[in-house]
Amino acid sequence: MPQTDGTSAFDVATDVTRTEGGGLVTDLDPDWDVGGGILNGGYLLSVVGRAAVLESPHAHPVALSASYLRAPAAGPATLTVAPGPSGRTLAHSLVTLSDAGGPALTAQATTATLGTGPSDYGSPMPDVPPVEECFSVAEHRHLAPPGVHVPGLSLKVDTRLDLATAGWAFGQPSGEPVLRAWMRFADGREPDPLALLTFADALPPTSFAMGNMGWAPTVQLQVLVRALPAPGWCLVEARTSEIAGGWVDEDYRIWDSTGRLVAQSRQLARAPR
Amino acid sequence: MPQTDGTSAFDVATDVTRTEGGGLVTDLDPDWDVGGGILNGGYLLSVVGRAAVLESPHAHPVALSASYLRAPAAGPATLTVAPGPSGRTLAHSLVTLSDAGGPALTAQATTATLGTGPSDYGSPMPDVPPVEECFSVAEHRHLAPPGVHVPGLSLKVDTRLDLATAGWAFGQPSGEPVLRAWMRFADGREPDPLALLTFADALPPTSFAMGNMGWAPTVQLQVLVRALPAPGWCLVEARTSEIAGGWVDEDYRIWDSTGRLVAQSRQLARAPR
Repeated sequence: MPQTDGTSAFDVATDVTRTEGGGLVTDLDPDWDVGGGILNGGYLLSVVGRAAVLESPHAHPVALSASYLRAPAAGPATLTVAPGPSGRTLAHSLVTLSDAGGPALTAQATTATLGTGPSDYGSPMPDVPPVEECFSVAEHRHLAPPGVHVPGLSLKVDTRLDLATAGWAFGQPSGEPVLRAWMRFADGREPDPLALLTFADALPPTSFAMGNMGWAPTVQLQVLVRALPAPGWCLVEARTSEIAGGWVDEDYRIWDSTGRLVAQSRQLARAPR
Repeated sequence: MPQTDGTSAFDVATDVTRTEGGGLVTDLDPDWDVGGGILNGGYLLSVVGRAAVLESPHAHPVALSASYLRAPAAGPATLTVAPGPSGRTLAHSLVTLSDAGGPALTAQATTATLGTGPSDYGSPMPDVPPVEECFSVAEHRHLAPPGVHVPGLSLKVDTRLDLATAGWAFGQPSGEPVLRAWMRFADGREPDPLALLTFADALPPTSFAMGNMGWAPTVQLQVLVRALPAPGWCLVEARTSEIAGGWVDEDYRIWDSTGRLVAQSRQLARAPR
């Protein structure tokens, strides 16, 4: 049953509250990890996005560009929002997420108020099999190759891979760095702009499809939210254009259940060894 | 003849110098405009990138994400670089470009040292006609429709549009928001990572291909530099995925003369009316 009263796992894990002194604090949840105690970069960006809209006259993050300075520890963290120019259409700010060790993530944030109007031009959703014919990452945790930690994230975000891009899970990597999956929160919490920030970094590394099961730490990530997503499953596609010199990019496009493009992201990451 | 001694128009227009007090200053050149005295966002990002590498142990900008707070005036401007974590592989910083009116652009900067090794995986260059069969924007300035200002930028950056994406210049817009062009500096100055930051925002708005000749002000722009470009013409492709609610995205991919992908960018802009 969908949880829309602020008690969903996502809403609790990304909650940002104001202290009596006026500062913003959060409690980073260790269960949104990608393995080894490393919290997912998209999850962290959702926390940052929540802080940005708290301090903005506008309701939605429409563009966030974050530098991942170092991996923050789970537990208490603070958020500072330095306001920039703000107007009727949009507002700018600079958000910093810090733990006891200092700043972990800084982000350019642009907030605005997304409407419900139709798209004037849109990229169509790719043709993919229905959810029930896709590969559940959570249900196949026992298939993880030795040494591959199944991340907590995979229990929070229900990820159903298009089998055409899941060969790596069966020891048959396609050699093409593309992954495609239906995605929603495991507890049924419906997608919204803050959720899309997590979805925009929630697939396994595209390098898995190249047969390389290493971790690809995010260096810089930009997410654009283009529309309010309809309820239901989102389709998430990640694609890499270039791997060279120890660097890899990942491009995400996310469509909602009506087939509308609702988010795009691009990240630069360190390529797995 | 290529100018590689720092006296090219680009090197002069993006020069950043250190004052006796240790601050960084520049002199924004009015000739790199997109019309109406508005300086090109890519040009501004090259100035920011130059400041970032000046204050970094690393030589190249590999990821820059900028918020365009307001359009700065041509003339004297200052740059502040707040250093972040710095290591053997990469360094982070936050760069702010300000004119007399205050901050105009803030950017997350990641610098690193790009090597000359081969690509492990790359997106091939699309099939396009040779430069001499393409449409020179500068040579056809007299064809500009009434009310369309031909930007100074078009005289600094030699842009040769693939005729398949230049129908709008003849009153026959394709209806597909894609532009493709060979690009190099008009004075022959060879491309480098700083140049790619300008190229990543130097095509006309993709909305031109939709028959909409208005201006699309950049709100947030991320550029990734993936390799040192070889000398010669670069191929630059811009593509829009979604236009809705007054917002438009533009995705750039840039290949060098050897066909290697050397840069990617994505921006969120306000859609022309």
